[in-house]
Amino acid sequence: MAEARAQAGGLVGLVPTMGFLHEGHLSLMERAVAECDQTMATLYVNPLQFEDPADLARYPSDPDRDLALAEACGVDLMVVPGPEEMFPSRPLTGVTVAGIGERLEGEFRPGHMDGVATVVTRLLAGLQPHRAYFGRKDAQQLALIARLVQDLGFPVEVVGCPLVREVDGLALSSRNVLLGARRAEALALSIGLMLAADRFDRGERRATVLEAAVRSAVPEDALEYVRLCEAATMTPATIAEGETVLVAAARFGSVRIIDNVHLVADHHGASADRGVRLGRPSLLYGSEGTMTAREQAMEPPGGAA
Amino acid sequence: MAEARAQAGGLVGLVPTMGFLHEGHLSLMERAVAECDQTMATLYVNPLQFEDPADLARYPSDPDRDLALAEACGVDLMVVPGPEEMFPSRPLTGVTVAGIGERLEGEFRPGHMDGVATVVTRLLAGLQPHRAYFGRKDAQQLALIARLVQDLGFPVEVVGCPLVREVDGLALSSRNVLLGARRAEALALSIGLMLAADRFDRGERRATVLEAAVRSAVPEDALEYVRLCEAATMTPATIAEGETVLVAAARFGSVRIIDNVHLVADHHGASADRGVRLGRPSLLYGSEGTMTAREQAMEPPGGAA
Repeated sequence: MAEARAQAGGLVGLVPTMGFLHEGHLSLMERAVAECDQTMATLYVNPLQFEDPADLARYPSDPDRDLALAEACGVDLMVVPGPEEMFPSRPLTGVTVAGIGERLEGEFRPGHMDGVATVVTRLLAGLQPHRAYFGRKDAQQLALIARLVQDLGFPVEVVGCPLVREVDGLALSSRNVLLGARRAEALALSIGLMLAADRFDRGERRATVLEAAVRSAVPEDALEYVRLCEAATMTPATIAEGETVLVAAARFGSVRIIDNVHLVADHHGASADRGVRLGRPSLLYGSEGTMTAREQAMEPPGGAA
Repeated sequence: MAEARAQAGGLVGLVPTMGFLHEGHLSLMERAVAECDQTMATLYVNPLQFEDPADLARYPSDPDRDLALAEACGVDLMVVPGPEEMFPSRPLTGVTVAGIGERLEGEFRPGHMDGVATVVTRLLAGLQPHRAYFGRKDAQQLALIARLVQDLGFPVEVVGCPLVREVDGLALSSRNVLLGARRAEALALSIGLMLAADRFDRGERRATVLEAAVRSAVPEDALEYVRLCEAATMTPATIAEGETVLVAAARFGSVRIIDNVHLVADHHGASADRGVRLGRPSLLYGSEGTMTAREQAMEPPGGAA
């Protein structure tokens, strides 16, 4: 990675990814390319953030396609560190963000948030970007990284970018290709969040009511949590005032998905950021090779393109 | 600190200190100045690494003298961050090095090693030096930082520099000015370590015997620990083979001091690094102002200059 950094000049942007790119990743890359002199993207499936070895083992991968997609976005340098390069020996050093990293995902995925914090620190330390781009789909991760960067004083601007949804509303995730026949069920999570956003738009501010809207759409045995939180700290909020985020996680079969809507209510007015919706099926379902078997087992999303 | 980094060009060296500089610090600065195009030094008494508020409250300080001494060494930029600049809000982010940070100092000073790891990460992240200089007096700290840098991938070379001793052998420490009338007693620690180094030079390799040499010189109620460790990992060693360090800590009155000898024994031969001994009393005892009261209460070290 030292060579990668040495090659980069001017304003350097970084887009860290775990690969198996979709339009969410590509939107980060396009924004970085537009804003920076040089854009680096990383493709590294970080074992530290997988608390479940089975989840790591089946995490989808298609590096050739990823490289082609990143190049098409104008990414200058794709950094694909091998495990040996990232961590020549098992790392003893861990980075933890108290509070933000302990709740929600930290609770349901023990060690996950520390794994994210450690690897992001590793990437920022080694690649020294001026800007780093992350999607708002991982709202808690974004809050954690923003706080980590502030606390550790990395001279990098953390840029949060809109969540991207499939045609029918499902938040884009590389894991969506693993949903298979349960994809229709999984749609319940985004449906619930859209219901909550609609309530918010009609003036509702109570956390209990907004959370109940999500619960009304998602089967109880699938929902892991739904919580209104302060966006910056991820502490529970009782009222959607200032900048809050309604975050939720659910499990459909063996696949766990997360989603959220970002809510702002202040003296200027109120807005619910539901993210961006694609106009056609995600490229997740369009590639050759590794995905073919999974695609065959899967319902097509939202009909024909 | 962002401005500090922006001003620096070429090969940038960093010497982090907690101020109240002595010849140990100055030797780091002189080496950095000799080896680097630009040398930055920091002066920051890091509250995160003080597990004892009383120890923090009385930690000696003389920033004007420090700035003059650093300038005389050729330091280009002295960075003196205020508490607000280092940590605008109480940091939630912590850096921990498992193993290395948990033993010895980590055991006797709970939280100390994590505080060191966090603030060093903060300095490396913010100042992005190419080389960072640390004294071997803090052998465990040096091992911890070397491992942290490796694990987090900071593109910085960690340079360990010789321990510096006073005329009579006491390892230099800003805290030495606090020893007062107990300074003569405190000398026992370095005397014990020199005895152990002498045994090592005469062929002794057994940890038990080397440790016993230290115990023979230091009153039992003063000694906190003496341990032969692998230098890189700080794990206990039973035999002084390869690169080991005999580390010890003792408490004299309310003042705690640490010291060590660095031992190398391989197929090339064997050597005990006892550090460097000053030819005249340390400048610790020569300044005006804040130290005067303390100096008056203190035995002069090793007679007249």
